[in-house]
Amino acid sequence: MSESLTERRRRLLGPNVPTFYEKPVHIVRGEGVWLWDADGRKYLDCYNNVPHVGHCHPRVVEAIARQAAILNTHTRYLHEGILDYVEALTRKLGQGLSQAIMVCTGSEANDIALRMAQAMTGKSGIIATDNTYHGNTSAVSQLSTRRPPIGGRAGHVRLVPAPDSVHPVGGSIERQAEAFALNVGRAIVELEESGFGFSGMMLCPVFANEGLPALPKNFLEPTLGVIRRARGLVLCDEVQPGFGRVGSHWWGHQLMGFTPDVVTLGKPMGNGHPVAAVVTRPDVMETFRESFGYFNTFGGNPVSAAAAMAVLQVIDEEGLVQNAKEVGAYLLKGLKQLKHPLIAEARGTGLFFGVEFMKGDVPAGEFTGRVVEAMREEGVLLNRLGRHGNVLKLRPPMPFSRANADFALHALQRVLKATPV
Amino acid sequence: MSESLTERRRRLLGPNVPTFYEKPVHIVRGEGVWLWDADGRKYLDCYNNVPHVGHCHPRVVEAIARQAAILNTHTRYLHEGILDYVEALTRKLGQGLSQAIMVCTGSEANDIALRMAQAMTGKSGIIATDNTYHGNTSAVSQLSTRRPPIGGRAGHVRLVPAPDSVHPVGGSIERQAEAFALNVGRAIVELEESGFGFSGMMLCPVFANEGLPALPKNFLEPTLGVIRRARGLVLCDEVQPGFGRVGSHWWGHQLMGFTPDVVTLGKPMGNGHPVAAVVTRPDVMETFRESFGYFNTFGGNPVSAAAAMAVLQVIDEEGLVQNAKEVGAYLLKGLKQLKHPLIAEARGTGLFFGVEFMKGDVPAGEFTGRVVEAMREEGVLLNRLGRHGNVLKLRPPMPFSRANADFALHALQRVLKATPV
Repeated sequence: MSESLTERRRRLLGPNVPTFYEKPVHIVRGEGVWLWDADGRKYLDCYNNVPHVGHCHPRVVEAIARQAAILNTHTRYLHEGILDYVEALTRKLGQGLSQAIMVCTGSEANDIALRMAQAMTGKSGIIATDNTYHGNTSAVSQLSTRRPPIGGRAGHVRLVPAPDSVHPVGGSIERQAEAFALNVGRAIVELEESGFGFSGMMLCPVFANEGLPALPKNFLEPTLGVIRRARGLVLCDEVQPGFGRVGSHWWGHQLMGFTPDVVTLGKPMGNGHPVAAVVTRPDVMETFRESFGYFNTFGGNPVSAAAAMAVLQVIDEEGLVQNAKEVGAYLLKGLKQLKHPLIAEARGTGLFFGVEFMKGDVPAGEFTGRVVEAMREEGVLLNRLGRHGNVLKLRPPMPFSRANADFALHALQRVLKATPV
Repeated sequence: MSESLTERRRRLLGPNVPTFYEKPVHIVRGEGVWLWDADGRKYLDCYNNVPHVGHCHPRVVEAIARQAAILNTHTRYLHEGILDYVEALTRKLGQGLSQAIMVCTGSEANDIALRMAQAMTGKSGIIATDNTYHGNTSAVSQLSTRRPPIGGRAGHVRLVPAPDSVHPVGGSIERQAEAFALNVGRAIVELEESGFGFSGMMLCPVFANEGLPALPKNFLEPTLGVIRRARGLVLCDEVQPGFGRVGSHWWGHQLMGFTPDVVTLGKPMGNGHPVAAVVTRPDVMETFRESFGYFNTFGGNPVSAAAAMAVLQVIDEEGLVQNAKEVGAYLLKGLKQLKHPLIAEARGTGLFFGVEFMKGDVPAGEFTGRVVEAMREEGVLLNRLGRHGNVLKLRPPMPFSRANADFALHALQRVLKATPV
């Protein structure tokens, strides 16, 4: 069955369409933190952040179904849905981040964020880390390091070494914050000298794609000082850490103790419905709106707004941020207690974890890959991240329970014991 | 009520967020070709192509609700939904256009199409008309002429004079096809000399945003010859004409008698659900997939695929393409019979119409604007297009009936009689 689906994919979608697992999973049903494949096999979902409040949460499904039956149109007509949502969303952000553009994907959101920085500075140079991903549009994919852009990276992009808690930038954890800031400062000088000028830096506040390094709360302070002194904007990609994922706070930037100029939101925002947003201060919004014409046909339509509103409400009503904090701390403790010769570090924030495997000084990417495959055989879906693919990535839906954590931990214990190093 | 909503929009969404009408309409409900505002006023929708099979079509609503309750996840797992849909969609296209990437918006689709042309040619120069819109990403908005990009248009973009049936390129309708092709040829030479090289031309096959000019079926022949001889790709933006809108055919390029290299789809595809696609030949797909990493989290998820599949099925089962042909011909005849001193031309294709108003040699944009406002007072929603906003734009949902056409025509007769020229 799966094999013939794979062949159909090749025929209809073309080559190199990414799948997970050596033998891809054919998922047919989801509920809460559970997924079922076509053979009726049940999997604990320890990977997916898009179904933020749980797969097929009935409140979100009902909100979508109800609004889709009443009205779904664009925002050139007036409608309360988008306004009620943006009001509720910006209340969760505060700090002057009071206006939003609703779009359909995190990529569209980041594509706008880049233009906000351009509009505010009149410059185009942009900085990101050298091991990241911020989206798939032509403009945003220039910041991606997974695959260098065709014809080389554009001149207005500078990448700085990503923070790392096992091999820190600058040689030590103590020096890393200053060393990271120093590299950002150098990139700013290069951009100014190149004629592009410096418009801002786009970053994930927990550096999720970089490997989710364990960083002190004040890690970004020196960097933010450098960016602000150069009058650049801080574009904060909250697509992964946002909506309470980090447990202690609603947003990754709150955890890291700073206020960005622009916040972008995506994946978890509509529990799978394609909705995303850019949130910023009125002065940034006004400057963007004066500099660029922008309209998004589907963005902020009543159904998307209803889906997103239901997600916000469920997070609050079910106490999912607090749950991420409590269950996150419980699972992290369990991960840290794992005994295995290759574990270099177990780290995490809220319901987002990395377990890094090293063979001495060599990243154990191949081993980590085998652990991922074996976990799937144990009925647990997770994946890996980091530059060398040697960091186990766990990022389950937010209603993840202690019992779910135990299930995952026990499976991981069995797999680590059984997997040859 | 509307005023306070307008104020809330200003506060929460910022300035310059486009609305229709001097006093924007506050729409709360839709069904078929009808919309209702907050005061219970009913409007005939002669504008919206997104609710392609009719506002809140129960088949589409049910497909979304059902699939959202079962599973909504990304395509890194296997699922039949996306495959069944791409199979059905490509069957409607034929001509070797057999593979697709599903995304969320027409902008994302066109952003990919540009990269497909780059991947196939190794060049980046792109041509569009000088009165068009193909989307809102940083890359695609470079082709937009509504508002010049900040810092000027990028060097790799060349715009050629758009075809026009009232003021033809080259001075006469007979010479227009050759004159248009000549300008494309000049732009190709410029791009090759500039070092960017020529990768392709992006065009809407019915030139919808350009003003929907009345063009002979073979209009594009000379241009396509020029593009093909220069080894560029024809990127066909079917966001407006696609899915049977043109009545005589499923696609605008079929109406115009040519086979594009890449077809992009958007707005009507999911009847309002954010779904879009790029369809191309296997050789183009393979080259793109080898040159660029691309993954879209929401693209082709089971709910989006279900929404899009329901739309395809409803079009067939309700005979909406044939309806567009028949009712379109009926309404066009009525529009052509309108007597008014400022009407320069009434034209259309399927259920897509333009009525152009001129005061002698001067485009009557201001008059057209007053007609749009007065039609709204008559309970008919439509808008205007064209370089000078002097073309009335009618593009209703596809289940538009003869009775609906009569309703619109009678309202337009009354408005034209009552509006001072």
